[in-house]
Amino acid sequence: MTIKRLDHIAIVVQNLEAALGFYRDALGMALTHVETIPEQDVKIGFLPCGDSELELLEPINPDSGIGRYLAKRGEGLHHICLEVDDIEQALADLKSKDAALIDETPRRGAHGRVAFLHPKAAHGVLIELVERR
Amino acid sequence: MTIKRLDHIAIVVQNLEAALGFYRDALGMALTHVETIPEQDVKIGFLPCGDSELELLEPINPDSGIGRYLAKRGEGLHHICLEVDDIEQALADLKSKDAALIDETPRRGAHGRVAFLHPKAAHGVLIELVERR
Repeated sequence: MTIKRLDHIAIVVQNLEAALGFYRDALGMALTHVETIPEQDVKIGFLPCGDSELELLEPINPDSGIGRYLAKRGEGLHHICLEVDDIEQALADLKSKDAALIDETPRRGAHGRVAFLHPKAAHGVLIELVERR
Repeated sequence: MTIKRLDHIAIVVQNLEAALGFYRDALGMALTHVETIPEQDVKIGFLPCGDSELELLEPINPDSGIGRYLAKRGEGLHHICLEVDDIEQALADLKSKDAALIDETPRRGAHGRVAFLHPKAAHGVLIELVERR
């Protein structure tokens, strides 16, 4: 398995517009676009940063996983996403090393196929893998 | 102020060797070096990732800020570091926008001058700025 890049860091926020008041207006980062992804219950603001990206996630449904996470833990870092060259191979490698997976097989994400690893595998960090199209 | 790059993501872990069992041995990331920084009370493992880096932080003193963080919150994402071109200018910009700072003036870090912003400024995220030498 080869990790190519830190694809993005996801930050969960209460209100995307309010968070842009800091990340865009105070830090001066560019906001390329905002996308609502109903099947993930989030509205996302994308802010590129070098060859990586910050994603600000505003839950649009308080009863979703991400909505409950916000209610329980508050705003802050949610997950990191690593780009791999071959996601099937990555998941097979991790399985053979007994790493705990949330997704045993890849599912379709906004930019390619993705899979989440369990935070207990990664010492408390929720990690998403992506194989970009 | 210009954010040039996501410099690194810092992950606090109980034991660096154990964490390398996942990040190096299962994910296949390269460990370039390990450094103990007594004045920051941490042992750090550096794992480059594209033009960014993961840093695994093991507290070496349970009574330090980072040691207490681990005891209270457990392992996981700790902070992100953004590279700026001019840290004096960045802090002046942020102050003029009433962003809460931990460090009002830069201090010396391992790779240049650094300053931490308060998580309440950045919607729950502890952000370090670095101006690399």
